[in-house]
Amino acid sequence: MARAVVLVSGGLDSATVLAIARSQDFACHALSFDYGQRHRIELEAAQRVAAGHGAVAHRIVPLDIGWMGGSALTDTTLSVPRAPTAGIPITYVPARNSIFLAIALGWAEALNAHDIFIGVNAVDYSGYPDCRPQFLQAFQDLANLGTRAGVEGHGFRLHAPLLHLRKAEIIATGQRLGVDYALTVSCYAPDSEGRACGACDACRLRAAGFAAAGVHDPTRYIQPAPAS
Amino acid sequence: MARAVVLVSGGLDSATVLAIARSQDFACHALSFDYGQRHRIELEAAQRVAAGHGAVAHRIVPLDIGWMGGSALTDTTLSVPRAPTAGIPITYVPARNSIFLAIALGWAEALNAHDIFIGVNAVDYSGYPDCRPQFLQAFQDLANLGTRAGVEGHGFRLHAPLLHLRKAEIIATGQRLGVDYALTVSCYAPDSEGRACGACDACRLRAAGFAAAGVHDPTRYIQPAPAS
Repeated sequence: MARAVVLVSGGLDSATVLAIARSQDFACHALSFDYGQRHRIELEAAQRVAAGHGAVAHRIVPLDIGWMGGSALTDTTLSVPRAPTAGIPITYVPARNSIFLAIALGWAEALNAHDIFIGVNAVDYSGYPDCRPQFLQAFQDLANLGTRAGVEGHGFRLHAPLLHLRKAEIIATGQRLGVDYALTVSCYAPDSEGRACGACDACRLRAAGFAAAGVHDPTRYIQPAPAS
Repeated sequence: MARAVVLVSGGLDSATVLAIARSQDFACHALSFDYGQRHRIELEAAQRVAAGHGAVAHRIVPLDIGWMGGSALTDTTLSVPRAPTAGIPITYVPARNSIFLAIALGWAEALNAHDIFIGVNAVDYSGYPDCRPQFLQAFQDLANLGTRAGVEGHGFRLHAPLLHLRKAEIIATGQRLGVDYALTVSCYAPDSEGRACGACDACRLRAAGFAAAGVHDPTRYIQPAPAS
């Protein structure tokens, strides 16, 4: 059974990706990061998702990048926007996907795995530069030039099966594969009980996706669910 | 004064790179990693080098990647070879330079720095795939696709000023710039007093470089210095 490393954040996208990788018969090694994010409750969700959806291993890597600053996700002196903003949002974390994928690559190489899965999406997304197809292609090129495994023969494949899906299509795919979205957390600024704010980018994209898919949204909100 | 992030390991190559970046009038932000390496004494050397050669800041990032396994540098059940080996050596750490550079990129972006310096070398080196020019080009491409700074206009430049130099030329360059090589440590398997083994790849390349440059080797060896 071929091994794969799957980035699992605890959100709905990566839960769906884990289910997709499992449906393709990979032995899935889930990887999450404790990176100083203000929504650390997503790590509990990541554990539930990995355990509930058949990962053979799950590792949460402590990786403090909050000291870099520059993002509302890691710097509590900056506010998470509660309405859409122009351009790349302040929740963008500098080089986050490059960092996460590089560590996933190291684990994949050590495991003799050739496949890495990531739940990025370039349709219903926040406009982060490191969620675009050209970034993913560049990372796969890097992976095959910068590793023993790449140089000695077999290449790495970076899978982003959600890349061109609408949020509603992602949710429909997950439903078919039996994903339990009640396990997942998307909100950037949940309260201490894990209830979602209903107003940040992540909440708005999630709620609109459930509405468009015609699927019940199991999210617990602080306030009534946002209109889609 | 433009800012730059400089990867500083504590070895002679990165000490020389720091001196080169300083000579080009960059405000140098030195970056080191406590990554479970068995030669952690190099972190003390990194602090001496950063302080002694004009870095305006120095950050040592805790980043445990030893759990991945697969390298004699992080897995103490594997031995560091004491003679040359064929192919990519067992001291290769999976995806190490991709990981280090991705974190350097995040810091550079948060600092509004456009320049990253790394002391890799593709001449007198150990054959690591992530020290080759095509890897560095691929990383620069990734940096400019996966960041806000890259997308919004100014690009990142990845500088590897030692890439095509012989070890002796690196040492001669450092001598001209006043690098104090007594501050640096290269050995992969030093003893508890910081004395170098004189036998590993890193010791052999270093000793041969000093001999070829006609420069006194300040390294303290457990045994007599290796013949060059």
